Amino acid sequence: MPSWIRCIRGVMLDISGVLKNGDVAISGSVEAVKRLRDAGLTVRFVTNETQLTRRMLLEKLLNIGFQLTENEIFSPAPVMVNLLNEKTLRPMLLVHPKVLPEFIGIDQSSPNCVVIGDAVDFFTYERLNDAFKLLMTQKGAPLFTLGRGRYYKEEDGLCMDVGGFTAALEYASGVQAEVVGKPAKTFFATALNDMGLDVSEVLMVGDDIVSDVGGAQKFGLKGVLVRTGKFIPEKDENHPIVKPDAIVDDLAQGVDMILSGQAEEKISGNI
Amino acid sequence: MPSWIRCIRGVMLDISGVLKNGDVAISGSVEAVKRLRDAGLTVRFVTNETQLTRRMLLEKLLNIGFQLTENEIFSPAPVMVNLLNEKTLRPMLLVHPKVLPEFIGIDQSSPNCVVIGDAVDFFTYERLNDAFKLLMTQKGAPLFTLGRGRYYKEEDGLCMDVGGFTAALEYASGVQAEVVGKPAKTFFATALNDMGLDVSEVLMVGDDIVSDVGGAQKFGLKGVLVRTGKFIPEKDENHPIVKPDAIVDDLAQGVDMILSGQAEEKISGNI
Repeated sequence: MPSWIRCIRGVMLDISGVLKNGDVAISGSVEAVKRLRDAGLTVRFVTNETQLTRRMLLEKLLNIGFQLTENEIFSPAPVMVNLLNEKTLRPMLLVHPKVLPEFIGIDQSSPNCVVIGDAVDFFTYERLNDAFKLLMTQKGAPLFTLGRGRYYKEEDGLCMDVGGFTAALEYASGVQAEVVGKPAKTFFATALNDMGLDVSEVLMVGDDIVSDVGGAQKFGLKGVLVRTGKFIPEKDENHPIVKPDAIVDDLAQGVDMILSGQAEEKISGNI
Repeated sequence: MPSWIRCIRGVMLDISGVLKNGDVAISGSVEAVKRLRDAGLTVRFVTNETQLTRRMLLEKLLNIGFQLTENEIFSPAPVMVNLLNEKTLRPMLLVHPKVLPEFIGIDQSSPNCVVIGDAVDFFTYERLNDAFKLLMTQKGAPLFTLGRGRYYKEEDGLCMDVGGFTAALEYASGVQAEVVGKPAKTFFATALNDMGLDVSEVLMVGDDIVSDVGGAQKFGLKGVLVRTGKFIPEKDENHPIVKPDAIVDDLAQGVDMILSGQAEEKISGNI
């Protein structure tokens, strides 16, 4: 049991690959979230999901038994909307149609920046090329990406995530993308601020060793990797760059670990 | 006039952006090719074109006035076919349907490698994801790309080339692609071998500063950049890495330069 476990007062949970695979809850994860709350820990759901609005994602999670509210979910699109408003930028949106409701009210006429999200089948050559042309013809137009993930796991196997398509636009245009979403520090900061806790008191649990674990650690959080979701033993168990603070079989085991730390803390507090 | 010009006995010409833009011959280029031949220089057409077979490309060029034969054209697909045969590899072909005739006779069942070419509208998420899945599930399966170009110019503007889509697969899968086509040395070597000239006697003319000029120079050829095709002054005129042996307005001016060198050589030879 690592000693830092005793200090944990809040947990950020990735959704895809930690709570569920596709539309199926991962065994023990519904109860695991409930146990965290029952123990008085603050829980937030920190996801790079950009195929859906938070509202749609909430409904999916409620349907498979999780208990949570919309404002506990932190996803890149609302953060991107704030950034566009702050900088008064008009985006060309290369995103999944289902996430478009998050962008209602954003002026998309005469676009002067590109926003790329996980568009899946909507990553057509034509749409990527339109984004490329904007970046080539408007000098200094920024490219924002709602994540840098390499892949994620669906029920039928691994799928390319937005990271590769971001790399394609970067390579062709020569413009470096700015990440909005994990592993960006500002994204973790938004969730942490809402939790009202110190960075030393919060743990991130994810199945993406770079975006979830590495990103959380760079921000100062503890990062725990689960062996569910996209986890691949030969790639992730001894990653050349990121060393997780712990690796657990699944969220249920991660919560066991966290709650044991809480129990120890109570015992030592009582002595 | 650089002194090396006198040594030139052969010229490799890029096609798109040097001879033509889309289906339109670039002004003076038909005559420029003829003048090279009339002066006794050996000419080869060295292209990363992978949207068409050499036969189709030949017909396009004949239609707009160029004089050449199919065996003077060097494109990546036939080199790729040789490589697949040598290594007895079975490819998943992520290429344009029009180039498929080059691959007739190649076993594509139970693929154990990926070949990516400039597929344009046929770069769908589904096809890219299938290639990604092959690379992830078959450990050590190679990824071959028929070029690394960032973009090329069509009549309606710049278009993303295969390089970006190669970068997408590399990023997602973690597999580094092997280039077949420019700027690979083996590709220039195939054309040079056919010319029967020494590396010091041949000049490459192209509009891609990295693949054409930089690639040729790394192989030991002289590399001349044209200001036609995809040329962009602010990006190419003072490129941070590649320094062309000469930059000319177009092929016609390049041929003027080459032929002046030949004339000087004759004069000095006569003295």
